[in-house]
Amino acid sequence: MRFTSESYPGVCAQPSSASNGFVFNHTMLRMKDPKVSLDFYSRIMGMQVLRKLDFPEMKFSLYFLAKPQADDPAPEDVAERTSWTFKQRGVLELTHNWGSEEDADFKYHDGNAQPQGFGHICFAVPNLAAAVAWFDENKVVFVKRPEQGKMKDVAFIKDPDGYWIEIVEPALMTNIGR
Amino acid sequence: MRFTSESYPGVCAQPSSASNGFVFNHTMLRMKDPKVSLDFYSRIMGMQVLRKLDFPEMKFSLYFLAKPQADDPAPEDVAERTSWTFKQRGVLELTHNWGSEEDADFKYHDGNAQPQGFGHICFAVPNLAAAVAWFDENKVVFVKRPEQGKMKDVAFIKDPDGYWIEIVEPALMTNIGR
Repeated sequence: MRFTSESYPGVCAQPSSASNGFVFNHTMLRMKDPKVSLDFYSRIMGMQVLRKLDFPEMKFSLYFLAKPQADDPAPEDVAERTSWTFKQRGVLELTHNWGSEEDADFKYHDGNAQPQGFGHICFAVPNLAAAVAWFDENKVVFVKRPEQGKMKDVAFIKDPDGYWIEIVEPALMTNIGR
Repeated sequence: MRFTSESYPGVCAQPSSASNGFVFNHTMLRMKDPKVSLDFYSRIMGMQVLRKLDFPEMKFSLYFLAKPQADDPAPEDVAERTSWTFKQRGVLELTHNWGSEEDADFKYHDGNAQPQGFGHICFAVPNLAAAVAWFDENKVVFVKRPEQGKMKDVAFIKDPDGYWIEIVEPALMTNIGR
């Protein structure tokens, strides 16, 4: 029998067809300085900017980042690419409220200090040790290195706004938890 | 020429091979009550629980939810499925710190009240009007209905913890922004 869902109180194993085609498309984080965050997510994390959308009357811009699958490349045509962007999975939306980068004291809330809610985003990497070396080479700040704390083989780094990014190598995760 | 990335200050169009294979795997949100949130994300949003991981010594459990692609089903074997889970894109991790559901006054921070940081997650749907009707049928709370506010054809609902979920129909998004 094909796997459908693990079963726990509350879980509906066979959802109604009303949710057919629903896709978890993106997660939105606010960023202080696009120049700094775009460098981090493109150069260090390897993401592409699929689309930037400007809303001048509300003074903000949205940047949609992902690493497209080889078999589903981003369309060249801008309108097509916008629509395509919203069909993808694993997109990171970074919101820039104009001017935040010019305020030296401005800082976003990372969700792990109080009050808590959002916790982190996570990237899977093919080789954890190589990824750690790459982050060190780029002076990325670690919340937790793989050898620290109770969860071995899991690292947490910080993005430029201080948001936590979990780093895992899937092959090392088979025996985590109970 | 194939699309690589839109170009803005900070964007690296041709990242180093050091980030090859990096995959934006999941977003973690804390939830107060698994029974309520698992019902919402499975029954209403159509997601499956790929894995639950328990950490009794730290008194928390992690639930990893997604809707697997038809051509890449979740493995039946638990250890294989754990590793597979961390390779996916578009996974939602819900963290349950044991006991929060028994504290009537306990509430997580949604990131849109002050202090701000995380903003929302987003689901693409095949038909926005049908999705809105489905949410109404299930008494889902709207932050903004499609016809309200400046961004037409975009809805925001709340999950059981009050986190915002944007709802978009990709075909309606071709002309959004500038």
